[in-house]
Amino acid sequence: MRPGAAIPDSARQDLERLLGVDRFLTAGVDREAYAWDNTGHRVLPDAVALVTTEDEVCGVLRLCQAYRIPVTPRGAGTGNVGGCLAVFGGVVLSTQQMNRILEVSVADRYAVVEAGVVNGDLQKRLGDEDLFWPPDPSSARSCTVGGNIAMCSAGPGAVRWGVARDWVLGLEAVLMNGEKIRTGGRTTKGVVGFDMTRLLIGSEGTLAVVTRAILKLASKPEKRYLSRISFASVELAASAVSRLLSARQIPSAIEFLDGSALDLLRRETSVPIAVEARAMLLLEVAGAALGLKEQVEVMLESIKNFQPLEWTQPVEGAEAARVWEARSALSPILKRLAPKRINEDVVVPVSRLPLLMDGLEKISRASGIPIVSFGHAGNGNIHVNLLVDPQNATIMALVGGVLDRVFRLVLDLDGSLSGEHGVGTQKRDYIAWELDKNCLNLQKEIKRIFDPMGLLNPGKIWPLTEVQQG
Amino acid sequence: MRPGAAIPDSARQDLERLLGVDRFLTAGVDREAYAWDNTGHRVLPDAVALVTTEDEVCGVLRLCQAYRIPVTPRGAGTGNVGGCLAVFGGVVLSTQQMNRILEVSVADRYAVVEAGVVNGDLQKRLGDEDLFWPPDPSSARSCTVGGNIAMCSAGPGAVRWGVARDWVLGLEAVLMNGEKIRTGGRTTKGVVGFDMTRLLIGSEGTLAVVTRAILKLASKPEKRYLSRISFASVELAASAVSRLLSARQIPSAIEFLDGSALDLLRRETSVPIAVEARAMLLLEVAGAALGLKEQVEVMLESIKNFQPLEWTQPVEGAEAARVWEARSALSPILKRLAPKRINEDVVVPVSRLPLLMDGLEKISRASGIPIVSFGHAGNGNIHVNLLVDPQNATIMALVGGVLDRVFRLVLDLDGSLSGEHGVGTQKRDYIAWELDKNCLNLQKEIKRIFDPMGLLNPGKIWPLTEVQQG
Repeated sequence: MRPGAAIPDSARQDLERLLGVDRFLTAGVDREAYAWDNTGHRVLPDAVALVTTEDEVCGVLRLCQAYRIPVTPRGAGTGNVGGCLAVFGGVVLSTQQMNRILEVSVADRYAVVEAGVVNGDLQKRLGDEDLFWPPDPSSARSCTVGGNIAMCSAGPGAVRWGVARDWVLGLEAVLMNGEKIRTGGRTTKGVVGFDMTRLLIGSEGTLAVVTRAILKLASKPEKRYLSRISFASVELAASAVSRLLSARQIPSAIEFLDGSALDLLRRETSVPIAVEARAMLLLEVAGAALGLKEQVEVMLESIKNFQPLEWTQPVEGAEAARVWEARSALSPILKRLAPKRINEDVVVPVSRLPLLMDGLEKISRASGIPIVSFGHAGNGNIHVNLLVDPQNATIMALVGGVLDRVFRLVLDLDGSLSGEHGVGTQKRDYIAWELDKNCLNLQKEIKRIFDPMGLLNPGKIWPLTEVQQG
Repeated sequence: MRPGAAIPDSARQDLERLLGVDRFLTAGVDREAYAWDNTGHRVLPDAVALVTTEDEVCGVLRLCQAYRIPVTPRGAGTGNVGGCLAVFGGVVLSTQQMNRILEVSVADRYAVVEAGVVNGDLQKRLGDEDLFWPPDPSSARSCTVGGNIAMCSAGPGAVRWGVARDWVLGLEAVLMNGEKIRTGGRTTKGVVGFDMTRLLIGSEGTLAVVTRAILKLASKPEKRYLSRISFASVELAASAVSRLLSARQIPSAIEFLDGSALDLLRRETSVPIAVEARAMLLLEVAGAALGLKEQVEVMLESIKNFQPLEWTQPVEGAEAARVWEARSALSPILKRLAPKRINEDVVVPVSRLPLLMDGLEKISRASGIPIVSFGHAGNGNIHVNLLVDPQNATIMALVGGVLDRVFRLVLDLDGSLSGEHGVGTQKRDYIAWELDKNCLNLQKEIKRIFDPMGLLNPGKIWPLTEVQQG
């Protein structure tokens, strides 16, 4: 089945009977809202199923399998790799209306939520109990927990708290054949059978549709202090990052901006930046208020060896938000200057950051494509932005070769093609660069066990030629 | 193939050619050392392969598959569920001679080790760099990293640092057909493809033989303070545990002893214990020395509501070792009093600990089998010891029914049958009590993908009747 192929009348009738016409959308105007994600690509699905219960998920999947209709699960559509786009047409299954927080156990530090709960809404609810769920993608205000789980999402806090896979105790999910599965449970330990919970996390909705999750919770830090530090070189900044990671309390964020990012900020904002600065770190430390500021000062002292050009005194609250601006201003500026920029999400061991930056600069110079890099230095996870103008055919012809060079560079530095965005459609042609053949084959066979007809989120993770059987 | 079945002459010759006669052991006296684990059951393998390289692992597995000989991977044999016993006969593959620490990166906070490296040896090496690898099973001085990974091991520190699955970045492993696979890598983030690393961790050596691991490291705490606190009831102790978990710095251990354990200590040791005490906690907090003792005092203050009967001032170093004695003395005492005790390893959400203890007491009273419980209260992970005398046929006839009741109780309390020991042969008949049918079937199919002939560590995890095809 291909985009635009109509859903057979009998299938449509069955699905309408199941969900009602208000929740099985086939009109173009209704489907449009489910045609986009953060890649900017538009793929109009043939229909949209707005499910409200797990049984409805079972029903939709069972019917779609019977009619051989592809199903693409979708949270809030904030992903960066096309993971929620119905590239093979068929039905987009939206979990956004499954958005109940079913249980918050303070004594046992877990929450049970439906997949469509918005990350930010959950945090608000948990904040009342001085708890939080650590995954903190920049889309937290709109992205769903189900999406976070599908993509194993994370954000700046990953350096201290880890990623989605570290904060899920158990899952309820539905297979493409409509059967339910349960993984894990309500305990923080458990070694009975294979780790099916983590097999589902990060599987990009290709194995099962997660309907409910038991989330492990953390104590909300009382305060967060932030400081901005600039360096004359990436080498010095990267050495400072390694030092900061050896602190006994790991920072809650160590963000990085490269020289090009600083040039942009100099031109477009009033953020004060030392003339010679070619790298900047944002250091955030979170914890109990007592002694926290002093702790940050000790950390700042510990990196004086690496000749910071300047640093701001650690601040919190509204003042911290202003310091953070150096980082948060970047994406909007880039979006304005290069609306069709290509945003990659590579990751290397921290000590290889200087080699990565050096290599990127060479690639940029050779191709004439400006590259602006920033991201989560504490994890070596860098967002590499190629500022391209899609109208410029000469430049666009180079993009493929440039991405090839970027990915080759990253892998040569013992890195990975994606730290938090995933593969989706965007990196599927590169997956064999990173994974060895045997491992890749096992994954394809696992996919076949879960979804023998290849109907669940087809076109994702693997090159098209290799696995589609739908 | 069944225990005692001879290995065909041609297979023996091929394997001796591969490893030499010194490392392919067939004499009974040589095999005896590989016939045991911590269950106390003896299962003599037909042969033992002492491998030293990954290529030898490939060779052994390839030959054994060709000859249809079962292979049971083995670390140090410290497991508690028969996981390394060759219950289907064939070859025990020992990784103990693959014990090199290949790389320690301080800047990137990882170590690359062979599977046979002893946990304690690794910690010693890492201590030089103020680093450590958090999994801390009580067998740390002898168990191997490969065994820790196979079983997803942990110890008291899990409450703060998590378990083996949280501290492995990547793996090298060999499939039963002799093919190598690589999972994960050297970065602390990565979402390219399914999470094969964690699929292998905790799979009890049934999917592949792990040969090498890239381990994530943590900063070694400067100091650890310990305090012993006793309560008049499990309810009060469990409430204190929940409160302690809400501290902004999670304790590095919250160990628990039940009333029967305290009775034992009263009788067999000079550990001072309040007369009315029916539950005891050991609270350990680790971190930078500055202010740490005060932090523990604040934590102790925070649980005064729960009417502790007495508590010791937080101490460190040798003094802490003496306080810890209340916990460490228990296993030896139990071993002496009831050498054939049955040690289960259940886990429930922390708030359910009182109901668990209450239920266990009822089961003990009804059966006449004394039950002593202690363990990792911070994770709700309790070691339940049935003190049975194997000579007493009347009692032994009750054991099956008692275990059934214990496991039913645990599952009714939203718990799991094993927090850290695993399934092996010991809990295979109960796995369907915990896992739903669909999830279990998926796991069996995954097993078949990795090991179609069912030759790798057969007889583990699933009931015998269901999956053996060797």
